[in-house]
Amino acid sequence: MNLSEVTIIQSMEAHNLMKEELVNNPETRTESDTFGPINVPSNRYYGAQTARSMIHFNIGVPTDRMPLPLIEAFGLLKKACAIVNQQYGLDKKLADGIIQACEEVAEGKLNDNFPLSVWQTGSGTQTNMNVNEVISNRSIEILGGQLGTKKPVHPNDHVNMSQSSNDTFPTAMHVAAALELNRQLYPALKHLHDELKKKQEQFQHIYKIGRTHLQDAVPMTLGQEFSGYTHQVKMGIERLKTCETRLYELAIGGTAVGTGINTPKGFGKSVAKALHDITKLPFVDAPNKFEALATHDTMVELSGSLNTLAVSLMKIGNDIRLLGSGPRCGIGELVLPENEPGSSIMPGKVNPTQCEALTMVAAQVIGNHVAVTVGGSMGHFELNVFKPLIIKNVLQSIRILSDVCKSFTHHCVIGIEANTPVLTRYMKESLMLVTALNPVIGYDKAAKIAKKAHKEGTTLKEATLQLGFLTEEEFDKHVNPKDMV
Amino acid sequence: MNLSEVTIIQSMEAHNLMKEELVNNPETRTESDTFGPINVPSNRYYGAQTARSMIHFNIGVPTDRMPLPLIEAFGLLKKACAIVNQQYGLDKKLADGIIQACEEVAEGKLNDNFPLSVWQTGSGTQTNMNVNEVISNRSIEILGGQLGTKKPVHPNDHVNMSQSSNDTFPTAMHVAAALELNRQLYPALKHLHDELKKKQEQFQHIYKIGRTHLQDAVPMTLGQEFSGYTHQVKMGIERLKTCETRLYELAIGGTAVGTGINTPKGFGKSVAKALHDITKLPFVDAPNKFEALATHDTMVELSGSLNTLAVSLMKIGNDIRLLGSGPRCGIGELVLPENEPGSSIMPGKVNPTQCEALTMVAAQVIGNHVAVTVGGSMGHFELNVFKPLIIKNVLQSIRILSDVCKSFTHHCVIGIEANTPVLTRYMKESLMLVTALNPVIGYDKAAKIAKKAHKEGTTLKEATLQLGFLTEEEFDKHVNPKDMV
Amino acid sequence: MNLSEVTIIQSMEAHNLMKEELVNNPETRTESDTFGPINVPSNRYYGAQTARSMIHFNIGVPTDRMPLPLIEAFGLLKKACAIVNQQYGLDKKLADGIIQACEEVAEGKLNDNFPLSVWQTGSGTQTNMNVNEVISNRSIEILGGQLGTKKPVHPNDHVNMSQSSNDTFPTAMHVAAALELNRQLYPALKHLHDELKKKQEQFQHIYKIGRTHLQDAVPMTLGQEFSGYTHQVKMGIERLKTCETRLYELAIGGTAVGTGINTPKGFGKSVAKALHDITKLPFVDAPNKFEALATHDTMVELSGSLNTLAVSLMKIGNDIRLLGSGPRCGIGELVLPENEPGSSIMPGKVNPTQCEALTMVAAQVIGNHVAVTVGGSMGHFELNVFKPLIIKNVLQSIRILSDVCKSFTHHCVIGIEANTPVLTRYMKESLMLVTALNPVIGYDKAAKIAKKAHKEGTTLKEATLQLGFLTEEEFDKHVNPKDMV
Amino acid sequence: MNLSEVTIIQSMEAHNLMKEELVNNPETRTESDTFGPINVPSNRYYGAQTARSMIHFNIGVPTDRMPLPLIEAFGLLKKACAIVNQQYGLDKKLADGIIQACEEVAEGKLNDNFPLSVWQTGSGTQTNMNVNEVISNRSIEILGGQLGTKKPVHPNDHVNMSQSSNDTFPTAMHVAAALELNRQLYPALKHLHDELKKKQEQFQHIYKIGRTHLQDAVPMTLGQEFSGYTHQVKMGIERLKTCETRLYELAIGGTAVGTGINTPKGFGKSVAKALHDITKLPFVDAPNKFEALATHDTMVELSGSLNTLAVSLMKIGNDIRLLGSGPRCGIGELVLPENEPGSSIMPGKVNPTQCEALTMVAAQVIGNHVAVTVGGSMGHFELNVFKPLIIKNVLQSIRILSDVCKSFTHHCVIGIEANTPVLTRYMKESLMLVTALNPVIGYDKAAKIAKKAHKEGTTLKEATLQLGFLTEEEFDKHVNPKDMV
Repeated sequence: MNLSEVTIIQSMEAHNLMKEELVNNPETRTESDTFGPINVPSNRYYGAQTARSMIHFNIGVPTDRMPLPLIEAFGLLKKACAIVNQQYGLDKKLADGIIQACEEVAEGKLNDNFPLSVWQTGSGTQTNMNVNEVISNRSIEILGGQLGTKKPVHPNDHVNMSQSSNDTFPTAMHVAAALELNRQLYPALKHLHDELKKKQEQFQHIYKIGRTHLQDAVPMTLGQEFSGYTHQVKMGIERLKTCETRLYELAIGGTAVGTGINTPKGFGKSVAKALHDITKLPFVDAPNKFEALATHDTMVELSGSLNTLAVSLMKIGNDIRLLGSGPRCGIGELVLPENEPGSSIMPGKVNPTQCEALTMVAAQVIGNHVAVTVGGSMGHFELNVFKPLIIKNVLQSIRILSDVCKSFTHHCVIGIEANTPVLTRYMKESLMLVTALNPVIGYDKAAKIAKKAHKEGTTLKEATLQLGFLTEEEFDKHVNPKDMV
Repeated sequence: MNLSEVTIIQSMEAHNLMKEELVNNPETRTESDTFGPINVPSNRYYGAQTARSMIHFNIGVPTDRMPLPLIEAFGLLKKACAIVNQQYGLDKKLADGIIQACEEVAEGKLNDNFPLSVWQTGSGTQTNMNVNEVISNRSIEILGGQLGTKKPVHPNDHVNMSQSSNDTFPTAMHVAAALELNRQLYPALKHLHDELKKKQEQFQHIYKIGRTHLQDAVPMTLGQEFSGYTHQVKMGIERLKTCETRLYELAIGGTAVGTGINTPKGFGKSVAKALHDITKLPFVDAPNKFEALATHDTMVELSGSLNTLAVSLMKIGNDIRLLGSGPRCGIGELVLPENEPGSSIMPGKVNPTQCEALTMVAAQVIGNHVAVTVGGSMGHFELNVFKPLIIKNVLQSIRILSDVCKSFTHHCVIGIEANTPVLTRYMKESLMLVTALNPVIGYDKAAKIAKKAHKEGTTLKEATLQLGFLTEEEFDKHVNPKDMV
Repeated sequence: MNLSEVTIIQSMEAHNLMKEELVNNPETRTESDTFGPINVPSNRYYGAQTARSMIHFNIGVPTDRMPLPLIEAFGLLKKACAIVNQQYGLDKKLADGIIQACEEVAEGKLNDNFPLSVWQTGSGTQTNMNVNEVISNRSIEILGGQLGTKKPVHPNDHVNMSQSSNDTFPTAMHVAAALELNRQLYPALKHLHDELKKKQEQFQHIYKIGRTHLQDAVPMTLGQEFSGYTHQVKMGIERLKTCETRLYELAIGGTAVGTGINTPKGFGKSVAKALHDITKLPFVDAPNKFEALATHDTMVELSGSLNTLAVSLMKIGNDIRLLGSGPRCGIGELVLPENEPGSSIMPGKVNPTQCEALTMVAAQVIGNHVAVTVGGSMGHFELNVFKPLIIKNVLQSIRILSDVCKSFTHHCVIGIEANTPVLTRYMKESLMLVTALNPVIGYDKAAKIAKKAHKEGTTLKEATLQLGFLTEEEFDKHVNPKDMV
Repeated sequence: MNLSEVTIIQSMEAHNLMKEELVNNPETRTESDTFGPINVPSNRYYGAQTARSMIHFNIGVPTDRMPLPLIEAFGLLKKACAIVNQQYGLDKKLADGIIQACEEVAEGKLNDNFPLSVWQTGSGTQTNMNVNEVISNRSIEILGGQLGTKKPVHPNDHVNMSQSSNDTFPTAMHVAAALELNRQLYPALKHLHDELKKKQEQFQHIYKIGRTHLQDAVPMTLGQEFSGYTHQVKMGIERLKTCETRLYELAIGGTAVGTGINTPKGFGKSVAKALHDITKLPFVDAPNKFEALATHDTMVELSGSLNTLAVSLMKIGNDIRLLGSGPRCGIGELVLPENEPGSSIMPGKVNPTQCEALTMVAAQVIGNHVAVTVGGSMGHFELNVFKPLIIKNVLQSIRILSDVCKSFTHHCVIGIEANTPVLTRYMKESLMLVTALNPVIGYDKAAKIAKKAHKEGTTLKEATLQLGFLTEEEFDKHVNPKDMV
């Protein structure tokens, strides 16, 4: 069999997701939109526009389906809109039906009804309509109506009332990112920070040789070294928080181009307030709706903070695995937890695998940031149409950073131990303690001592005495690691 | 309910994938590795090391599971190894059992048994062991043995015979990428190229005004404009092929650090030959195994070609949507297929959604390339440990480029029509036809004509006659768009 | 002549910058360091370590010389250190000489003495020593001594007193970036913002058709469109300011590894205070010196804000050139200032060249950000050794953003005019005004109107009346652009 | 003095480069273009359009002036065009004058006449006109005419004859990149390769412990390790060559939009031939001129190869400095050349500074590649207007890669020595030699030995004998490092 030939032929057949869906769910009903009627599986709540998207955008699924936290955010947003719409005249019965359906969406109960690819229209209109259709049909069902009739709940006229994809999608982007930050990334970073801090304290009296340019330098404590990591993580949280003012600003109320056409005055403000009530996060009305639809500068900004965090974690992961390298032919100052066999061929090998996951995630986040940057830079006029790309990457970065920080904290940081014999040996052997003699005998003479000791393989004291720069007593007085940190 | 507070608490609970798996599959058996015994679901073929990875690496799943084309490639590779191992003395009965199990892996029949995250050890050892364990247990089953006993087929000693994760994982990376290129991306690009070429021919006599700096320039044909796109796609295929020499070179035979320890001489060459036979792709033995394990320069190179292709597609997608902008207030030279309703608020709106998916995919591939570049740059000594990151991004780029090219070709390119009335109107109005007069009256006088016509809102001919530079007859002779292309 | 052959031979000759320097400045004196004596030009103040760097690092010069704002910052820093060192016992006469020399460095009077490449040691030690040597020799000269004797002012013992490259270089990085932000970028952005705001006000009653997906959408005012740009620039300034807390924190006082070895307690705090006095910028002591030497997370963060700004400017530049496209075959809603002839072949052509410079700069800043990110991620242990790379890219990004914003404001924004006839024509022709009918007749009927008008090339009113959905009076009442914005 | 306030005021003054130029060169003559007359310094050859560009684009200079290799390439190109134009009827006397002026440009004799910023129009038209003006005036001078009269040599009608910026600028980009590759980068890489190869041979019998995941692994030779680096550099050259087919294809002949308007048939082919004759590089006519003007996919491709090379060099630089870390507290297997003092505070410290320059350059090239990618992706219609950005980054990458490879080869690679005592000690101590026992006693028993020895701090042999798995004789027979490589 010629595998490649066969598959080439297969691959050019016209595939679409809808066909597949209908194979697995053969019973159908008819739905319709302005393009006409179309069959969908009877056991799905979505309607015609979702079906059309499945036909036209069979790209990267199932891996690249629209992320679930965005669907959840849409559920919360549509609920908030229904609450506000009722205040503006939407029939209470309809509103109640819609709200119940929205809650089911937000709770993930209807996840099977959101099959669309990220790689669809760049406004996310198809996902907004997917949400509208599912909520419409589910609330029709709740209210005793017939699926597909759009009665008594129409996906556009009722569920999408006073809304446009152009303001709901960016609003859902902000809500989803804010939720994920608050419930996933902040606690994971806080946990990592606290455990690093514990190590910093545990190691505060363990002396070690510092290294600059990867070369032996002057002494410090292992606790001081870890304090750098702790501070990095603390700043990482602060950096994420610097964009919160803008992240909590919502596009809702801008509708099609930012003018708020077909929307009652104050709608955006009321929906932001309702979302605040629902999520307890301080959402507000965006001060400029044109910017809020046409750009995603704030997502680029947030992605930039995630990028800086990735850079910090890359440093921490690299340092810890280098310090833990060995066990006999590396630097070996730290002993890392042994979690699993490390090699399919080398028996007994154990590897710094948590550091590896951490640094791989960091590389991914750096790449995601470039994707977000490119997408963010390419908006035209009243709408940036790289919205699904942008939110996919931001949510993935938040998710994998959160997960890997939890994993790294639990399975690595907590179990790190200092390898005291190694740390002590290095301290004794290092030549850079000579630095303490600068103020006593000057830089040039101190350099002579270090070079002599290095060349002859002796200790600093031996070299100093041979050169006659100091007495043994003087040397011992000035060269004391504990005074250097 | 305070959503964020609740979820913060939830998120810090210790989760692991294994726990979840056991909830869904409560019946268990005991497996073991050098770390000791561990329970796994009875209905899974994987063993202890897979289970440990599920405990320690609950990161980004299920979205970020190790990609299936890599698992398939592992199936093919393990089969090739078993064939060769039999030649080197592996018992035929065992080999046959192993081969059958490998084929089931390659065919995707055992996909549920590969639950591991991409974000695991950077060598991919855990996935290599996952594959070894599944093949071992499945072949034990085939041969009538008892799962978990490692008898008569041991995951390390038999399935992984003469192999290491360090050579199998990079080999599987190359095999997976080569397969996906050949069966997905090449045909998709070929198809796109051919349909663009048809448009080029269909439009070869349709005259239009060219644009440089987005400003009106001299005439050309619409066919000439499309010939640029056609050529870009053709070169895209050529660029991908430039790395094939290196892509078909396989690490297998290098085992742990590239020396081929525990491997019979010629093993790598024989396995490459067997893979060639199985896939019909021209795999060969890598000339330097140290480079093949310690670096993924060739993956960075391939990713670079995908990046260039993304750049080409971004240009094509942008041009086509700009040319199709309107319908009444844009450039409007092309009429694009109308596939679906474009707005949840603006009735009757139709958007260039295929271009949007295309350009979003391009942005993703550009970002993925940076992730691959960062991962590729950070190998240390004998092993690059960003392997899963690298192959995940390369395979995703190939996959979404393939899918979006198919989609864009089918749902956009094939249906593009020229909007002749618009094209003709622009041709008549443009001032840049004056360029044809340079050789007749010189650049400076020609500039005077254009500036006068622009300022006064007249035609070039009127301005020329008024300036007295040429007679009407002379003007008509020299200024003829059809002579300018 | 075979150019390429000749030059190949030339290129492999051993070149070094010192040799060239001595050709142009043949008179020499002898300087020395711990590696021995070395000749330098008599008319230069630098010493042996600068000379060695010129021999070993002939890379990319003269283009890639260490940026002058960094040299200036070093001058200010060394002055601040001398002031504080005097308080801690440095001889007043020496201190005065050093301070005068520092001021000359800061004022750019000694620029010819800083010939080193950016591509040197990753700690920037050679530039720190270059500065120390120049200040040492210049103050020796001021104090009547002999150049090269290190008496009475020694580059290490006096100029570098209580300092290390490891704390001075990152301090100078922060000082240089803070100065350039405050005197270059903030005012340039403020100016751009103010002029965009004026346009926003000037255009506030000019109605136009909005565009989403590049397709005609609902109406808005040109002032609203510009308000989006104004808001983007305003947020750009805010984003830059979010990292100021960390940017004003200085590494000084940490010396070699962050412990502050050989430095009196309080030294860092006093120097930060002195720098605050000199520059009026609120510099303070960094709370964690280990982080301040080993990482440049704050530079990555700042670069991230510059990256977001670049994304904003890319959008603005793209929009403005697209809106100004034409003059006869484009969108043509704006008339941009004509600054210069646009073509060497097409007479009378004028191009949106300021937008082009703006968007090219944006692309460069995006690229620079990746360089900074990669460099920032690769620190090891107590020192990040990508310092010169990082500051070069950050300073270049600030510089070209500042310059291009000034240029774009002066030569483009200020002169932008609305092309009212075109704006009015589009408004009349657009079909998306139909959106206003959604609340009156529902989305589905409104879509029918738009589709009919589009297909038949008629107006919305004609289509509405033909479909009998509304009377003319009703139509006119509901479809009024001025009510839609 | 409040520095920041003062400079804020200064910075907002209207500056332009022309004003500065006239301060330094106060004597003037009048030049003119289609926008009117303008004064330029009498001692400059450039004309009105160059002057206008200096007024409108004061961005990033002098650092970011248009790169000199591009000016050189323009000189060669204009010469080739003049030769061909003479064949098509250009007066021989004029042609000779032009050719002589072109040669002076190519030889760098007129460099002071090319003051323009990279950040100008995105087509590079202003630099094309700068070249045309300088050649025009210089050949007028040669032919005895008066500067500024455009007689007898007109910059557009004669120097730019049958050309447009739109085809000359991309042609000069290809010529400049090809020249720099051939005379700078290829020989530098060849030299690096050859010296690495020598080390590979010198170290071929030096045994060492390999490392995977930074952890001790099985043995290999130091020569094998270096063979990986050698192979990387060899492949780096091959990768650069894969784009040569496309790099040697020239846009010339396409003029304004690719149609070749105002150009005799065969012009492009003849100019490519002439350039081939002049440079001995195999330039040919581009097969599709539309693609050659509208895209720079080939520059993105070339930049991708430079990116892969950067990734390779990052790995090599990182490995060598890690292997050379110490001298007493690091891995210490290599002794690197000591070129200069390494610390301003730590006497006697020596650092791997060449590796640092190498890895910083690699990071820059990775960043430049993103800038090129972004610029390459954003072309519109018939012209990509990110041309100066793209060529600036490509030429800088080539330049600094060339320079740093020369520097790294000369000042580091050539002097690397193996630290045999350290290498031998590690070999003896490592536990991973146990791998050789897999085929003898199986993976599980071998793991027991390694774990026991690790836990108890003993040798493998001691653990093996205590476990009774083998006799001492058997152990010695199977565990022999020299058999493992």
